[in-house]
Amino acid sequence: MIHHTRIIEVVLVVIALFVMWYAVVNFSTFKRVVIGRPMRSRELHEQHNKLFWLIALPILSADLYSSVAYGPEAGLTELASLGKSALWLVIPITAASVILLFILILSYIMGIIAYPSGGGAYSIAKDNFKKPWASLVASSSLLVDYILTVAVSVSAGIQAVASAYPVIKPYSASLAICCVLLLVIVNLRGVAESATIFAWPTFVFMGSMITIIIAGFFNEFAHGFVQPETPSFGTIPGGITILLILKAFSSACSALTGIETISNAVPIFREPQQRSAIKTYIALGTVTAVTLLGYAYHLYVQGIEVREDETMLSQLAEQYFGHGIVYQIIIWSTFIVLILAANSTFTGFSQLSAIVAQDSFLPRAFTNRGDRLGYSNGIMFLAGAAALLIAIFHAQTNSLIPLYAIGVFLSFTIAQAGLCKRWMKVKGSMWKVKLAINLFGFIVTAVVTAVVAFTKFLEGAWIVLVILPLLISFSIMVKRHYDKIAAELRIDPKETRPQPHDLVTIVLVSGVHRAVLHTVSFAQSLDSRAVAVYVGFDDESIDKMKLKWEEWGEPCKLVTLRGEFRSILAPLSRFIDRLEINECQSSSSIHIIMPQFVTKKWWHNLLHNQSALLIRAWFLRNKDVVITTVPYHLQK
Amino acid sequence: MIHHTRIIEVVLVVIALFVMWYAVVNFSTFKRVVIGRPMRSRELHEQHNKLFWLIALPILSADLYSSVAYGPEAGLTELASLGKSALWLVIPITAASVILLFILILSYIMGIIAYPSGGGAYSIAKDNFKKPWASLVASSSLLVDYILTVAVSVSAGIQAVASAYPVIKPYSASLAICCVLLLVIVNLRGVAESATIFAWPTFVFMGSMITIIIAGFFNEFAHGFVQPETPSFGTIPGGITILLILKAFSSACSALTGIETISNAVPIFREPQQRSAIKTYIALGTVTAVTLLGYAYHLYVQGIEVREDETMLSQLAEQYFGHGIVYQIIIWSTFIVLILAANSTFTGFSQLSAIVAQDSFLPRAFTNRGDRLGYSNGIMFLAGAAALLIAIFHAQTNSLIPLYAIGVFLSFTIAQAGLCKRWMKVKGSMWKVKLAINLFGFIVTAVVTAVVAFTKFLEGAWIVLVILPLLISFSIMVKRHYDKIAAELRIDPKETRPQPHDLVTIVLVSGVHRAVLHTVSFAQSLDSRAVAVYVGFDDESIDKMKLKWEEWGEPCKLVTLRGEFRSILAPLSRFIDRLEINECQSSSSIHIIMPQFVTKKWWHNLLHNQSALLIRAWFLRNKDVVITTVPYHLQK
Repeated sequence: MIHHTRIIEVVLVVIALFVMWYAVVNFSTFKRVVIGRPMRSRELHEQHNKLFWLIALPILSADLYSSVAYGPEAGLTELASLGKSALWLVIPITAASVILLFILILSYIMGIIAYPSGGGAYSIAKDNFKKPWASLVASSSLLVDYILTVAVSVSAGIQAVASAYPVIKPYSASLAICCVLLLVIVNLRGVAESATIFAWPTFVFMGSMITIIIAGFFNEFAHGFVQPETPSFGTIPGGITILLILKAFSSACSALTGIETISNAVPIFREPQQRSAIKTYIALGTVTAVTLLGYAYHLYVQGIEVREDETMLSQLAEQYFGHGIVYQIIIWSTFIVLILAANSTFTGFSQLSAIVAQDSFLPRAFTNRGDRLGYSNGIMFLAGAAALLIAIFHAQTNSLIPLYAIGVFLSFTIAQAGLCKRWMKVKGSMWKVKLAINLFGFIVTAVVTAVVAFTKFLEGAWIVLVILPLLISFSIMVKRHYDKIAAELRIDPKETRPQPHDLVTIVLVSGVHRAVLHTVSFAQSLDSRAVAVYVGFDDESIDKMKLKWEEWGEPCKLVTLRGEFRSILAPLSRFIDRLEINECQSSSSIHIIMPQFVTKKWWHNLLHNQSALLIRAWFLRNKDVVITTVPYHLQK
Repeated sequence: MIHHTRIIEVVLVVIALFVMWYAVVNFSTFKRVVIGRPMRSRELHEQHNKLFWLIALPILSADLYSSVAYGPEAGLTELASLGKSALWLVIPITAASVILLFILILSYIMGIIAYPSGGGAYSIAKDNFKKPWASLVASSSLLVDYILTVAVSVSAGIQAVASAYPVIKPYSASLAICCVLLLVIVNLRGVAESATIFAWPTFVFMGSMITIIIAGFFNEFAHGFVQPETPSFGTIPGGITILLILKAFSSACSALTGIETISNAVPIFREPQQRSAIKTYIALGTVTAVTLLGYAYHLYVQGIEVREDETMLSQLAEQYFGHGIVYQIIIWSTFIVLILAANSTFTGFSQLSAIVAQDSFLPRAFTNRGDRLGYSNGIMFLAGAAALLIAIFHAQTNSLIPLYAIGVFLSFTIAQAGLCKRWMKVKGSMWKVKLAINLFGFIVTAVVTAVVAFTKFLEGAWIVLVILPLLISFSIMVKRHYDKIAAELRIDPKETRPQPHDLVTIVLVSGVHRAVLHTVSFAQSLDSRAVAVYVGFDDESIDKMKLKWEEWGEPCKLVTLRGEFRSILAPLSRFIDRLEINECQSSSSIHIIMPQFVTKKWWHNLLHNQSALLIRAWFLRNKDVVITTVPYHLQK
């Protein structure tokens, strides 16, 4: 009759909660071990943390290049219902996305030329549009897309491993969330340190992809370019519609997310930064294009179809290398590079949110750097949101794809528009060519954005289209709030100067004991006219207290209040109100001093009435009183 | 591809969290509406809140009497595997539990004679055993059992309704948890007020049960006492074992839980309290015995078997009355009375936990009475624990029964032992008869406890037998902690008197603005030698601050600290350490004054760096400094 598994579940949850609680309570020790020694602010700008472009290439390309692992497959998934005769469409669709890739890279190089110190869509929009909404659309859509990048990349990584080891399939979501947590720890450790370590897996993955493509050509030289499983080329499959092709193209475009990484990251390059960044862009574009086209071509030749339980990459690798060591290298480097893509997104998200928060469009907390120079709050927020998405979509890449890409293309579009405006204003050498490139880029990305939004609307794009306006309104509200507060706080330092004023000092006492002794001593050190206040719930306890106080030699005047509702707050609040009326000088203020136990062990907090905390919180919020807490450190 | 149900789930969770958050933030308004106006302490003792015994009867009997709805069925469930030929065993098993019922009631009447002002197992044990463990066993087992009573009663109530309306079956657990939440609200509204309203449903349920029994006899006069579906009486079913019979008896004993309610509640009776309580016991015992025996007899005559989807009570009622209005009354009054049973348990749990907490064996927070005179923390804790049990066991009464009863019988046993000790010590009129009754009661309940623990061990009793020692050790640890603290805090009021001492006052400033103006003004009112401290993260901001301070006419000395790790805490902490060394008079203490923004809307808290809170919490815990918070109430 007993649900043993349920009980085990509950026990596990309790243990997990305990570990979390322990981590929170003993945070500094925990942090030192897991996150490492704190870094000084100036370490941020030291040259040895800057990257040579060939090292920066894999680090910054993980996001874009890793998408080849799921982009073409996402496109073909849309056409899966048409059967084998639609397989050849992988080639034109991939070709179209490669053309788009080149247009985007060219546009982004223009961006780096315009802003040599780097800057993403947000900075470009901010610089070129007076109204904040354009830059907010760019920042919000990028932030949303970064969250999706983490969710999609990690899910695709787990899916890659699950292709080789189907046994982990049912645990995909949990494993993906564990990966996200791992990334949080890595990112709280700091950016640049992780970077150099992380360059090599991407090289290995690039190598693996190139190896597959070369192996494919060897295979085709040996067995012919038309093999038994190669479907016919160019036949129009039955049931095909323009909409379906556009859908497939939209999904395939998810392979292009991550292009913006390099232009955002110009400052991390070693000098000459501008040239290095452009070099990196060209190199990355070439490698990605070759990989996409080669991979798509071999998929077609081998006639590989979309399967629920195995990725196309895994199927192709198996075709050429069997289940041996090469296959393992391909699977694991795919996994690692997808995790790295998520990792680089952490940097992108936290930097962008910090820049936006600096401009008061997001809570200031996003500008706080952690002990290791990463923006801790941004990192944590991103991880939480991505984990939520993974949980909702069960770590299914193909369920997440429809939400994806729309944000990236929206921000691309705005960046291009901003650049166009800039060229028209600044002009400069060859400005007409640059304008033409960005104008073309603008038109193309705007069309792609519309296509993605339209074709994917019902499958999930609506979620993004609902969240974006909410996020933008939130940003505007935040900005308005900060502006109001700043105006409210502003004073003229020449005119308004601090004025000492009269004080009424009240000490809350709960009896005659050592903690009260400390508090009353402190109060008398501040103000010899301090008054002690005692709240009792019945006459008996009040009389007893009066007697004790007398016995104590009446260190100061004692006022006793009767708490009829067993609440300390109500009578105290009435007493303060009366004081305010009696001492009706606008210059005097009321000062409440109260003891608070500081326990040795955290769980002892459960054993001590938290009334001190409650009283403090209530009075701070509801009355204009100053509250002083005199800690009493319990020895036991 | 999208999991729409998942999204709806998430949206619902978000809304629920928001409502909770709103309730917490606007607690006082929310409380007024849902919980009602606060009551004064003295209302607790007013006569008009005391109950006439005939009204007290249904209120205090809900717990015991409602058990007839699931007790006999729980017993027969154990025998279900034996088939129809075991059905007649319902009669001897029920008869045995009725005999046990009379023994218990007699013992409890002895208890009321011994303690006219009432008192449950805990008070009796405390009074008669020097060592605390006996009373702690009694209190802990009762507290555990109260939690189970709520879970079992509510689950059984939902099961009754689900018999009539099978459509709600899949939502049993959620509905049961909703009922628990409803009970929390009702109980936070106060005890006595709810009581009189709640008397009538129990009368209706008693009436329904008596009606069923009378209808049964009419039916049997009309159609014979042996009907076609009546199984043969006295045949030994194949496969029966002593263990199985004991198991069935143990389960049937769950019908006896709740007897202790009346003896705990003597003070709520109108005078003469002792006589009223005894009268109530006799009346209740008679009604319950008649109901149990009559109900079991008709179950046998109608040959009703245990079914997964319909309770036996529902089957029997259907047999006599069909699915008409009488059936509806029976089902709904069963439901209501089971909910009332859970309700009366709320009073029992919170009162007992308050008494135990008064003796320092549980956290003091359990002694806090809420606005409406109920013990709010006990009520909330009970509800949380019961809801957890319901969730774990999916609101399946029969899964919960094995955990049940053991606690009640354990506390019965200890109470009887305590009474025996008392009669031997106090003697008095007819003490030998009284001793004999309680000694017999002790032996019977001890045997039943052992039988329940043994026969139900694997099915769930082990959980209780693991939790009980943990709870008892916790109680002892809590008591030890409170004793240590009391010793630590004790002072001799004639010798130790408050001594004013020197203070070093520090004001934390973050710039020159209105909030800083307030804080510095306050600091200077307290101590003209106050020093302002500014923590900057780079030289630029520090120089800027120095300039601003000069421009402000240097209201007091300014110390600037450099925070290399972008943390305010680290440099501040080092500064305080240095101060402590320099001002090395043991008599002087350090006083930190800091501003804190108080926002108008709760969500604005997200927008302001909570550094003030963090600094305060850290320093209180780690340093011996006094901290003063000067609130700045934001207008916008």
